[in-house]
Amino acid sequence: MSTYLLVPDSFKGTMTSREVCRAMERGLRCVDANAVVYSIPVSDGGEGSVEAFLMALGGEKIEIKASGPFFDKIDAFYGILSDGETAVIEMAACAGLPLVYDRRDPGRTTTFGVGELILDAIERKCRRIIICLGGSATNDGGCGAAAAAGARFFDASGKVFVPTGCTLSEIAKIDTSALRERTKGVEFVTLCDVNNVLFGPSGAASIFAPQKGADEGQTALLDDGLRHLAEVEGHSLANTLGAGAAGGMGFGMLAFFSSKLRMGIDAMLDISGFDKRLEEADYVFTGEGRIDPQSMHGKVVIGVAKRAKRAGKPVIAVVGDISDGIEPAYTLGVTSIFSINRVAVEKSAARKRAPGDMALTVADVTRLIQGCKK
Amino acid sequence: MSTYLLVPDSFKGTMTSREVCRAMERGLRCVDANAVVYSIPVSDGGEGSVEAFLMALGGEKIEIKASGPFFDKIDAFYGILSDGETAVIEMAACAGLPLVYDRRDPGRTTTFGVGELILDAIERKCRRIIICLGGSATNDGGCGAAAAAGARFFDASGKVFVPTGCTLSEIAKIDTSALRERTKGVEFVTLCDVNNVLFGPSGAASIFAPQKGADEGQTALLDDGLRHLAEVEGHSLANTLGAGAAGGMGFGMLAFFSSKLRMGIDAMLDISGFDKRLEEADYVFTGEGRIDPQSMHGKVVIGVAKRAKRAGKPVIAVVGDISDGIEPAYTLGVTSIFSINRVAVEKSAARKRAPGDMALTVADVTRLIQGCKK
Repeated sequence: MSTYLLVPDSFKGTMTSREVCRAMERGLRCVDANAVVYSIPVSDGGEGSVEAFLMALGGEKIEIKASGPFFDKIDAFYGILSDGETAVIEMAACAGLPLVYDRRDPGRTTTFGVGELILDAIERKCRRIIICLGGSATNDGGCGAAAAAGARFFDASGKVFVPTGCTLSEIAKIDTSALRERTKGVEFVTLCDVNNVLFGPSGAASIFAPQKGADEGQTALLDDGLRHLAEVEGHSLANTLGAGAAGGMGFGMLAFFSSKLRMGIDAMLDISGFDKRLEEADYVFTGEGRIDPQSMHGKVVIGVAKRAKRAGKPVIAVVGDISDGIEPAYTLGVTSIFSINRVAVEKSAARKRAPGDMALTVADVTRLIQGCKK
Repeated sequence: MSTYLLVPDSFKGTMTSREVCRAMERGLRCVDANAVVYSIPVSDGGEGSVEAFLMALGGEKIEIKASGPFFDKIDAFYGILSDGETAVIEMAACAGLPLVYDRRDPGRTTTFGVGELILDAIERKCRRIIICLGGSATNDGGCGAAAAAGARFFDASGKVFVPTGCTLSEIAKIDTSALRERTKGVEFVTLCDVNNVLFGPSGAASIFAPQKGADEGQTALLDDGLRHLAEVEGHSLANTLGAGAAGGMGFGMLAFFSSKLRMGIDAMLDISGFDKRLEEADYVFTGEGRIDPQSMHGKVVIGVAKRAKRAGKPVIAVVGDISDGIEPAYTLGVTSIFSINRVAVEKSAARKRAPGDMALTVADVTRLIQGCKK
């Protein structure tokens, strides 16, 4: 009888982390009916983080109106954990890419709603606020959130405005005194899953703006805007790893909210009691929709693998697609990687089969594990 | 240090068995540089059999002109093994589906050339002739081959003719005396990879004629023809398992050449010294282009798995596609099955990536094997 620990990321657009856990467990039990199975549906800090935190630690989901990516009022949410003092906010709830549908425009979208959620949490007496970055539609360097929380951005003529990606370069002066007053005594922890800096070739705009809808020219403008923001607000923070996460929201949290930045997966693993489960486990299963070189930077699979490696436990990654260039994963602790693609079909067809194929693939991996033990 | 035995089928249209062995070995050595690797590129009796026999046992490839599927002269070949007495003929060399290109017509194609190869081998003093069925374009019940070797087929008016699929029902009488004379003292062994009977719902026409180009009406006519042949020549042989192989060529070999019928994979494993290698092996790798319920009947993967199961060795099947309904494979000795599909793309794209994906997948399987041994 073996003990298995399941810690997959979501397969974005296909299965949530919890659905992946269920499919994996079904596959395991086909082969090893008496297996002890621990499931930790995690997230790397983006979408699904509030749910994951509430599931692991208990608490309440708060549903309120807040500003969406285009300053329109939308139904938003965040979580207050069972200690009553800790709020968990995922920025995707107000500034997420799914909220803009096909109107992708990182020049005009805002994180204003995130600031509103922060204020709401403070009004409800939260003293610790965890901000989960990831999945954002924005490139405003967190200025929207700061403005909502009381920061005032002035242009050259002295007019107050809320900067977005394409107007960052118009900032002449920033007054954060009201913001500091309102957030006094509140501890901020920001979770991100990338370690990009704010601007430049590996900055927020260069790396992520294209997938948010920017063309080459706009990407260059957005990068200039972020650079300008850094010059006005504090150049040194711009080079912090993670400052470029979520359209520069990492920087905004550092600069305006004096937040700490942590890798989301490590925080998730800590709060969910991963290390204790790992001790008991014989095998660890993880996975994500696509493993590629980007996966090596702070994502779930590698975050799990690094800890499992220290504990000497084998880690099997069962994923959607396996791209080229993923060899570093083996050095970082992944024992082996299998794709759930069981027939050669295009992505749209593969997606429909994903939960079944996940179960079958995990079953085959388990058969091999059991077969080799004999 | 582990010992691996590689015994894959070809991936039809994508990689020969030998190419699969090479890709598998490349993957193994990435992970286990000092591995002892034995490769047995086999075939289940169809295309590639002559090459496989010559590689395992040595001998000479004979190249001669013979009749093709439409009675046209083509460049054909067979093998004479190093004992000088044993010929190996694959029917696909004269009657194979690739030879007809897009002119698929199981009503008019013939096995006549196969009979010519048989006579040539007898003239060169072969006393034992191995006929490898499979991959045929024909449905003539082996009448073409018999005619070439001296059998005379009469219609109701007493006229001699060479029956093909659509004229089998015109056979009124068969005189095999000249054929018997010419083949006296020659031992025939026929290798096939399916166990279908000659006619009826699981007969040669019903199951295989559609993939040779027959529509529903023609399939029924071809089935009637085979039934008629059985009535003229000997009903009992028609129910032998394998009689329906290769458009009824199995039946023709039984009825006209007094041949034994054997499962191709078992014969191949015997002549290639599989059992001895198996004793030394820690792990067996096999594979085929697509594993499906049809694979359970006498094909390479299951043939290998059955023997490995008796020896208590784990068998990993690394395949192209994995269809539904393959669960019996596990009972028959396959430990686990993995697909080489590492990204969700269509078959045409998957084919191009196949050798590389095979190596990478075998590497991941090997990592898991090694990782679980620790």
